[in-house]
Amino acid sequence: MAKAPVLTPRADDFPRWYQDLVGKAELADNGPVRGTMVVRPYGYGLWERMQQELDARIKAAGAQNAYFPLFIPQYLTKEAEHVEGFAPELAVVTHGGGKELEEPVVVRPTSETIVNDYFSKWVQSYRDLPLLINQWANVVRWELRPRVFLRTTEFLWQEGHTAHATFEDAREYAARIHREVYADFLENVLAMDAVPGRKTVRERFAGAINTLTLEGMMGDGKALQLTTSHELGQNFAKAFETRYLSKDGREEYVWQTSWGSTTRMVGALVMMHGDDHGLRVPPRLAPVQVVVLAVKGDDAVLDTVRGIGDRLKAAGLRVHVDDRTDTPFGRRAVDWELKGVPVRVEVGPRDVENGTAVLVRRVPGSKEPTPIGALPEILPSVLEDDQALLLAQSRQRRHDRTVEVTTVEEAAEAARTGWARIAWDTLGVEGEARLAEQGVTVRCLVAEDGSVPESDDQPGNIAVVARAY
Amino acid sequence: MAKAPVLTPRADDFPRWYQDLVGKAELADNGPVRGTMVVRPYGYGLWERMQQELDARIKAAGAQNAYFPLFIPQYLTKEAEHVEGFAPELAVVTHGGGKELEEPVVVRPTSETIVNDYFSKWVQSYRDLPLLINQWANVVRWELRPRVFLRTTEFLWQEGHTAHATFEDAREYAARIHREVYADFLENVLAMDAVPGRKTVRERFAGAINTLTLEGMMGDGKALQLTTSHELGQNFAKAFETRYLSKDGREEYVWQTSWGSTTRMVGALVMMHGDDHGLRVPPRLAPVQVVVLAVKGDDAVLDTVRGIGDRLKAAGLRVHVDDRTDTPFGRRAVDWELKGVPVRVEVGPRDVENGTAVLVRRVPGSKEPTPIGALPEILPSVLEDDQALLLAQSRQRRHDRTVEVTTVEEAAEAARTGWARIAWDTLGVEGEARLAEQGVTVRCLVAEDGSVPESDDQPGNIAVVARAY
Repeated sequence: MAKAPVLTPRADDFPRWYQDLVGKAELADNGPVRGTMVVRPYGYGLWERMQQELDARIKAAGAQNAYFPLFIPQYLTKEAEHVEGFAPELAVVTHGGGKELEEPVVVRPTSETIVNDYFSKWVQSYRDLPLLINQWANVVRWELRPRVFLRTTEFLWQEGHTAHATFEDAREYAARIHREVYADFLENVLAMDAVPGRKTVRERFAGAINTLTLEGMMGDGKALQLTTSHELGQNFAKAFETRYLSKDGREEYVWQTSWGSTTRMVGALVMMHGDDHGLRVPPRLAPVQVVVLAVKGDDAVLDTVRGIGDRLKAAGLRVHVDDRTDTPFGRRAVDWELKGVPVRVEVGPRDVENGTAVLVRRVPGSKEPTPIGALPEILPSVLEDDQALLLAQSRQRRHDRTVEVTTVEEAAEAARTGWARIAWDTLGVEGEARLAEQGVTVRCLVAEDGSVPESDDQPGNIAVVARAY
Repeated sequence: MAKAPVLTPRADDFPRWYQDLVGKAELADNGPVRGTMVVRPYGYGLWERMQQELDARIKAAGAQNAYFPLFIPQYLTKEAEHVEGFAPELAVVTHGGGKELEEPVVVRPTSETIVNDYFSKWVQSYRDLPLLINQWANVVRWELRPRVFLRTTEFLWQEGHTAHATFEDAREYAARIHREVYADFLENVLAMDAVPGRKTVRERFAGAINTLTLEGMMGDGKALQLTTSHELGQNFAKAFETRYLSKDGREEYVWQTSWGSTTRMVGALVMMHGDDHGLRVPPRLAPVQVVVLAVKGDDAVLDTVRGIGDRLKAAGLRVHVDDRTDTPFGRRAVDWELKGVPVRVEVGPRDVENGTAVLVRRVPGSKEPTPIGALPEILPSVLEDDQALLLAQSRQRRHDRTVEVTTVEEAAEAARTGWARIAWDTLGVEGEARLAEQGVTVRCLVAEDGSVPESDDQPGNIAVVARAY
């Protein structure tokens, strides 16, 4: 009798596979209020590691963390385009402390407005610039078609907000965050292939003059927007009177950026790297890089796994020792596979006699006996190899499933199974609108050489089009 | 002409001194919605360091981080005493996504109810216990008399929630968190004298069967509750049907704990260690332990301060180099003093010639020339000495301002300027009620030997009474 698969196979039903995996790997549950989620310890451990890696990069780029309030008074909702963009998604508090409020307050969907209310007080002189702030927070955008991690009414994120003396300085900082924080993190920690590009006017953040994005291809060929960095121009500065006294004594409006990344990246991790057996976590991200499993509960085995655990921790790896032998070994092995821990070291009574352990690598799916004494030396390079392999596989997928097309019809057809690249001159805003009617969007514009275009109408721009989450 | 003080002197007006300090040291601003706050980068840096130190201790105690939703449906508000306790402080969302909600949702004031909704699903067998969860989050309690950090409508905190198989295990875990996480952190990182004790029934958390507290004496002799750890008994387990199958096959309700610490500790830091010149940050907490200041902007000075900065960083210290010589030196020195950075190393042109720097220690207030080459070696022990001095000063204050009394009248009188200790047998719940009419509360019960009593009526219990924030 063939074993029933633990997860719905991806080829049968990708969305159901995703839901199965998120539930069975204990990443998250749906919350009681529709569209909210409960992030379980293993899922939150992934997010904590993302936070650590991003936070270090954000600080290296000179920004400091702060915290702005959850509640925004309605009188602060200025900057017309921004307010209009977010109005349909707002949650509103009308009662507090047992009374109806004189003025209802909005639960932040993002913090540009409240941040500018304070920037306009804190910024006086050119000496106060650049002002580089980041916050880690929850935000709420009422979601009509929720999907756990990908689109949730409440999500966790970091949002950066900066003010600069000149257009050029703001532009360079948005690009720096895009490159040194986000692109570097996605490639070198999450092992994700991601295309850096520029959003079209239609897809831009409400209130921005330019949005930079990193777009990833998921396992089903759809696109997911991974991170965004916005140039806000002087739109918020003018709405909030955020001005500074320049070196030559003139009052000038500041130039601003904002940029964010969210718990959606946990969903991206699943859809980018998961397979029919579960998640595959990139070793550099993994909260647990190596799990050492006792096959049975006899003393020699338990002593051995604990000893291996200690030596691997001493070698600087993130290690978990699974000695819960009151649960059958097979069930625990399947569970660690589902959770995508990069390496399993399995030790049974016969292994102890032989001085070996079975080394199971989640990414290539290999399984071979290995001398216990050699583990501390070989595992670091095994993990680096598997990190590289995940990145290579995600690159390969995009290359295999992206086609060059020359008409709107071909682009729509290609987007059924992957991505299409089409000259922006050919597509244009009208072609973009026609694709949108079929649920296909321009994910971003890229230059011929793969760089990020300086403008929408830069000659040679290519539109990357796809269906998207 | 005498210099005007930067802050209102504490002796003149303690609450105004506190507000002055919080604003001028750039810790926080009031938010636009009454009772909310904007935590500025320097204030947030203090909170981040608190988070790091607490998080490491929480993980060492075996708990894992997770995240539960901000919004709680009203049907989940079970456990009568708990619901009644929090009802007057709730914020309610009635509109979402442009529509009135069919059922309004509550913004979490704490998460016992929503956590139990999931614990009741996750816990099946004794093998699932203990279940040890913590979350870092924002919560909202509508505040009628807000004061920044101390009582705010929204605040940041960690809240732990655990489920255990037995009463004893839950009791021991609440005590372990109280001792190994909170007491250890307050004493060894925040350099705060804090009295560990047990809350009376009147002062207990709504829904708990026992609350452990750590109470600190502020600079004005009032008390502040710093952290709490609750035994919840089976109150929530029964309201939410959180049960497990025991080893011998019986369905049993779990025993629970919850425990929390908040951004209020930033306020405590100010009121515990601040003086008329500003904050004094304990070196082990300080985001910046040493600031190296260039007195003037000539090349030799700038080279020297940068070199000192590099060598002190290499010695493992948290260092900031202040080379913003376009701002007058005096103003910067006052600013670092206000911010309470433990050590300033000041370097002017003459110092460079002499190979010395002026070493200014914030805690003892000393100032002396020191050979530059000796700094990396002496500063670590200077910082440890000043850490110890802060703790000793806070202990001394409590000893000096606590009196032993034998009547309710004497207790009320003593609470005008400090704390009183009175036998709980003498005071009793009636005496407690009489004190409460005068704004004086029992902060906690302690045993004669200073340990935490096992029960309210343990013979020899002493009530510590005070006015409190």
